[in-house]
Amino acid sequence: MTELLSDTARKTTLEPLLKTGWKLDSNRDAIKKTFKFKDFADAFGWMTRAAIWAEKWNHHPEWFNVYKTVEVTLTTHDVGGLSTLDVKLARKLDTLAGEARA
Amino acid sequence: MTELLSDTARKTTLEPLLKTGWKLDSNRDAIKKTFKFKDFADAFGWMTRAAIWAEKWNHHPEWFNVYKTVEVTLTTHDVGGLSTLDVKLARKLDTLAGEARA
Repeated sequence: MTELLSDTARKTTLEPLLKTGWKLDSNRDAIKKTFKFKDFADAFGWMTRAAIWAEKWNHHPEWFNVYKTVEVTLTTHDVGGLSTLDVKLARKLDTLAGEARA
Repeated sequence: MTELLSDTARKTTLEPLLKTGWKLDSNRDAIKKTFKFKDFADAFGWMTRAAIWAEKWNHHPEWFNVYKTVEVTLTTHDVGGLSTLDVKLARKLDTLAGEARA
């Protein structure tokens, strides 16, 4: 069962993410990041790879794409806030973006 | 060269779209529609097919996806408003959504 991140987990797993460009949403318990790519094909290619992981983990992002930019928000609707699933997906998105830009 | 839709074209090509669920954006010369699918895989599958057409035509949507919902906005940044490219892409998105739901 997925649970809200504990205070300890927020220190150990959320804080490192906040150093890689993720920000806390000011309106709700969620994290956001804007990813920029070379062009649309690159951006959507990354989304496609991310979508496969999201579906595999049954945990889906809220995301907005315009051309080469993708704004992502992660939260866990089932628990009404951030859970370990969000941390896991955020890390995967960063990894995939690093590969996409490599 | 892409141009803004003429008044005549708005009558003949835009009005029919407004009957299929597209709406004029109240803030700028753009059209919007919310597409709902069975689940995420269905929604993202549709986005992937749409992305290929968008790239082929070099005309890209602004779109926001959460799970099985995709909110699309179309406008032509180069001309600062709606052009024939938006009508063409809107029709394609409708067609692809029809096939996806079939």
